[in-house]
Amino acid sequence: MSTPEILLVRGEQPPEHRERIRAAAGGARVEFVPDLEEDPSLLARATAIAGGAPQGVLAAAPRVRWVHSWAAGPDVDLTDEVRSSDVVLTSSVGNGAIPLAEHAMLLMLQLDRDSERWARAQRERRWERHQHGELAGATLGLFGVGHAGADLAAKAAAFHMRVLGCRRRPSIPVPHVEAMYGFDQLHTFLAQCDVVVVSVPSTATTRGALDEAALRAMRPGAHLVCISRGGIIDDAALLRALHDGHLGGAGLDAHSLEPLPEDSPFWGAPRTIITPHNGATTPGTSARGFAYYLENVARFVQGRDLLRVVDKAAGY
Amino acid sequence: MSTPEILLVRGEQPPEHRERIRAAAGGARVEFVPDLEEDPSLLARATAIAGGAPQGVLAAAPRVRWVHSWAAGPDVDLTDEVRSSDVVLTSSVGNGAIPLAEHAMLLMLQLDRDSERWARAQRERRWERHQHGELAGATLGLFGVGHAGADLAAKAAAFHMRVLGCRRRPSIPVPHVEAMYGFDQLHTFLAQCDVVVVSVPSTATTRGALDEAALRAMRPGAHLVCISRGGIIDDAALLRALHDGHLGGAGLDAHSLEPLPEDSPFWGAPRTIITPHNGATTPGTSARGFAYYLENVARFVQGRDLLRVVDKAAGY
Repeated sequence: MSTPEILLVRGEQPPEHRERIRAAAGGARVEFVPDLEEDPSLLARATAIAGGAPQGVLAAAPRVRWVHSWAAGPDVDLTDEVRSSDVVLTSSVGNGAIPLAEHAMLLMLQLDRDSERWARAQRERRWERHQHGELAGATLGLFGVGHAGADLAAKAAAFHMRVLGCRRRPSIPVPHVEAMYGFDQLHTFLAQCDVVVVSVPSTATTRGALDEAALRAMRPGAHLVCISRGGIIDDAALLRALHDGHLGGAGLDAHSLEPLPEDSPFWGAPRTIITPHNGATTPGTSARGFAYYLENVARFVQGRDLLRVVDKAAGY
Repeated sequence: MSTPEILLVRGEQPPEHRERIRAAAGGARVEFVPDLEEDPSLLARATAIAGGAPQGVLAAAPRVRWVHSWAAGPDVDLTDEVRSSDVVLTSSVGNGAIPLAEHAMLLMLQLDRDSERWARAQRERRWERHQHGELAGATLGLFGVGHAGADLAAKAAAFHMRVLGCRRRPSIPVPHVEAMYGFDQLHTFLAQCDVVVVSVPSTATTRGALDEAALRAMRPGAHLVCISRGGIIDDAALLRALHDGHLGGAGLDAHSLEPLPEDSPFWGAPRTIITPHNGATTPGTSARGFAYYLENVARFVQGRDLLRVVDKAAGY
């Protein structure tokens, strides 16, 4: 490389992280900048930015070749400017896959067993038994079979569930997924599932994909769980399906509006469990995301290919 | 057989069940009796009783060779009279294994993620995120590795957990269990686990086994889940360990006193989830238990060996 590499890292980083980033950069300059616009001459010479480049930044940073997103789903950092540039965008895809799959299983079990009923009885010191279901024998539909979906498929197999998948590229097989459908077969897929877990990234194709017709294609009484992004399920259609009883319940970790406002109808929707986009908020997720970045820092300064490069056309 | 077989079935049975039992009995006489003592002459000629034989019944039923328990854990039906007789006692062991393993996983996830915090925030329409753990990487200890334990071991493996077991006969290996300890190594076993699931049957050996010393041998902050029987954990010792913070939480489906009385201190114990011995209350559990009975009915009238015979000395 003729140009010296200058890596900017946005936001706060603890001293130990700073040290590890510098070590990974192997002598290349690393600057930790709370505000990218504070030092225009530094930005003008920077070659990489970690933490996303908000719209307008790249125009002032002509040498930047790499932008890293701390998010697993890089939709927020895939600005028009980034999309239309030659800059390579990398993400932390996969860092929260395992805890998200755990969260999906928690929500599935809570819905299937109506655990809220037990919690209410406990608060009131009432011994009140009820008959409930088993996940064993039920059909799980994975709408999106990326890192979290694949991990959830393995868990569901251990729960003796049948697993179907629906993804952009259905020809790629995933262990434990009995049949894979393309997005054009969404309704056929949905109609077979007792529980559907939304784990697709938010892209132009997936946003709004679970609309009124799709939700009506689901089995009466089926459960819907969302662990990836809000906006993929049509909010109004979902509320209708919960209120009129077509769907048996919903477990929602990702929401169209975040934070979910106090007056959101979802808080009190029937048979609905709300968690605050919190399924993967674990020390492990942070540690894995940080390790992914360090690996790419080393690759970047060595001129090697980066990992977890976002497909800008696909949107993730 | 020189004596004609007369099979008594205690309690209510729906017509469809009666028909299936008669079909399995292939012509042998089957009587459905709400009360065994109602017809002493019938009892005197009976050769089998389904639904347990309360203390005193066998003295009035000299021809009975087989007693069947509808329970998976036959401790209630293992009366002194049954124990000291030659009567074969069979159980429904295994019929609830899969839903119990599901329930254990639900309780483990709820404890690990403190899901009650989200439920409280939802009731109050508050968006309140918190950092939580992952089961991945944690060590699960199975105290008892029967049908439910073995199924839970497979699930835990799919959750990327390390699994240890502690059982009466540690030499029998179980898939996904990395190391198996005997009851004499209980403390060594407990000291390695982040979460311990009690799935042993209630026997003279296991009752009270998780006493003060055993609970103190557990890791500080560890979670304790009980899915089999009450009385295995010492109630007072557990309450102390929850109140003083030694244990990080408990998920209890089986209790020393059932129904748990309104004034039980467990309802309000810190970080404790109470369910009303309800983990396996599914249509599947009933169907499997009934199918087990039918299979033994056919074997009995054909003079073949019965399945799921209780080891009276072991107590299950």
